[in-house]
Amino acid sequence: MNKVRIAVDVMGGDEEPQVVLDGIDAALAADADLEVLAVGPADIVEPFAEERERVSALVAPDVITMEDDPIEAVMHKRKSSIVLACRAVKKGEAAGFFSAGATGAMTAAATAYVTPFKYLTDTGEKRPIRPCIVSTIPNRAGGETVFCDLGANPDVEPEDMVRFAQMGATYARIVCGIANPRIGLLSNGTEDTKGSHFTKSCFPLMKQKVKGFAGNCEGSDFTSGNFDVVVCDGFSGNVALKAIEGTAKLLLHELKGVLLGSMGGKVAALLIKKSLKGLQAKLSGDSRGGAVLLGLRGVVLIGHGATSVEAVKNGTLATAQAVRSNLVEMLAASMDNIVR
Amino acid sequence: MNKVRIAVDVMGGDEEPQVVLDGIDAALAADADLEVLAVGPADIVEPFAEERERVSALVAPDVITMEDDPIEAVMHKRKSSIVLACRAVKKGEAAGFFSAGATGAMTAAATAYVTPFKYLTDTGEKRPIRPCIVSTIPNRAGGETVFCDLGANPDVEPEDMVRFAQMGATYARIVCGIANPRIGLLSNGTEDTKGSHFTKSCFPLMKQKVKGFAGNCEGSDFTSGNFDVVVCDGFSGNVALKAIEGTAKLLLHELKGVLLGSMGGKVAALLIKKSLKGLQAKLSGDSRGGAVLLGLRGVVLIGHGATSVEAVKNGTLATAQAVRSNLVEMLAASMDNIVR
Repeated sequence: MNKVRIAVDVMGGDEEPQVVLDGIDAALAADADLEVLAVGPADIVEPFAEERERVSALVAPDVITMEDDPIEAVMHKRKSSIVLACRAVKKGEAAGFFSAGATGAMTAAATAYVTPFKYLTDTGEKRPIRPCIVSTIPNRAGGETVFCDLGANPDVEPEDMVRFAQMGATYARIVCGIANPRIGLLSNGTEDTKGSHFTKSCFPLMKQKVKGFAGNCEGSDFTSGNFDVVVCDGFSGNVALKAIEGTAKLLLHELKGVLLGSMGGKVAALLIKKSLKGLQAKLSGDSRGGAVLLGLRGVVLIGHGATSVEAVKNGTLATAQAVRSNLVEMLAASMDNIVR
Repeated sequence: MNKVRIAVDVMGGDEEPQVVLDGIDAALAADADLEVLAVGPADIVEPFAEERERVSALVAPDVITMEDDPIEAVMHKRKSSIVLACRAVKKGEAAGFFSAGATGAMTAAATAYVTPFKYLTDTGEKRPIRPCIVSTIPNRAGGETVFCDLGANPDVEPEDMVRFAQMGATYARIVCGIANPRIGLLSNGTEDTKGSHFTKSCFPLMKQKVKGFAGNCEGSDFTSGNFDVVVCDGFSGNVALKAIEGTAKLLLHELKGVLLGSMGGKVAALLIKKSLKGLQAKLSGDSRGGAVLLGLRGVVLIGHGATSVEAVKNGTLATAQAVRSNLVEMLAASMDNIVR
């Protein structure tokens, strides 16, 4: 494989930095052509890099926490791991960046420092693409459904939704191997007339500008397999993703109660425990190691805050994979009116 | 118990009318003080009423289908079962109405014919309450979470959300027996600063006007048990409810695959099949027999379109229960500035 260097945020996620370090080691063991730029406090990243041939250190004395206001933090914590890693991608010191840090700060820093592509509007104006977060969840048809925006933008314009759809479709083709993805606009019913004022104003634009647009879809279509890409604003996407995660938690919780309530159940519990854990992980929207921030001039992946060694490994490898598959360039090439 | 007469839409739901008739019989058997006004085509409701002491017939030659435009249908299909049943409630010929018919048409007909309460705005104007659909789903704390609006109104004003919150809180108190419900505003994070432009404009109003307001909540809080009432616009509510249903379907589907894949699993499958079915039914938002349309001067319950004898029975009994508990009057009394 091509040699590729990925920046990994040692301070990302709710766990101890050691979890991230172990995840990096696991990724290095799995991919002989991977190099890692470990970004974080000197006392953590320097000894770690010292002892490893394929790791270098980028010292970031500051950290952005989940409690920080994203925009404020990105403006004022210039020496934070998230900001320095994004700048490293921009400068070409890393080909991509993975972090399980705060979604809002990741979006703000990546927008400011990795910078989005621009596009020409219908009136000939140059405007930056609004980046969106894309991920996949497993569906009942045995495949996976791409969905975006997962939460980068709580408020968007119909024109942004067109771009989300185009980016989601490209992701479906390149990353998931779906040749002709069927694109759905998330609504409160599948009929053309259904929707809020906002989705109703998106519908004709999507119809006109999005190849593969298959009409309105609904909340059940995240998992139905009737659509390959579900497009929504980041508010609805965030609500839906968390509702899906919460439901999985509830069901597994209840199921545990049922299984442990009887002798036969205890045997069954052991049998299916592993499969259920795997399913829950898939439903967290992390089945591909993290959610990709699309629309940028670089690869940025956001992992789940509640991270693990396995998740960091998968996220780092997925970031390298996105770089090698040339996702960013393919994306730009697949959208209309992109300005280089 | 008090004698109470409930109108039941024989044409409601995706199944044959016979399913509804069997459901009515089951409800009558369970509640000796229940009377039913069966609403539907003459050849169905007349012979049915003829043979039963506690059933009377209301002939409705027309029917509103899931494909009809709700407003159009309510305006033009004046002899439909939904319209005639709503008018029967208004005229006092029935104390409440249950149907598994189209949600949009039910909302439109109930608003037009059962009519909502009015309230005084801050500027002293009289304005009709926008009805909202409320239901409950089980949560991980072993209780249930009330949520509204489930889909009556895709677009609302912040002031409507205040009323949804007040109605949801009253429902939580009266129907679920939660003395001091904790009210959450659905957002994309629990911090006060999170939200879309819309929810950010709701937040200060909720804080000022809603007793028990506990701040922003997120999609996972439908099932977390951290909030007793989740308040949202009907678009987000509809998306979330369907995402929850879809996730439950996916998990049960996958689980079936896991269980049937091994010998021990087959035994386990039998053991837990019943519990899982019950759980899925609860998650459909129908654990109380149907979703109540609140804000009206009468009791209206909407059942799930994919109905069954058991669902019709539960829905009819739940409607009678709502009448007997004086839900409508309690609701009006609990809200500020209601005009009688």
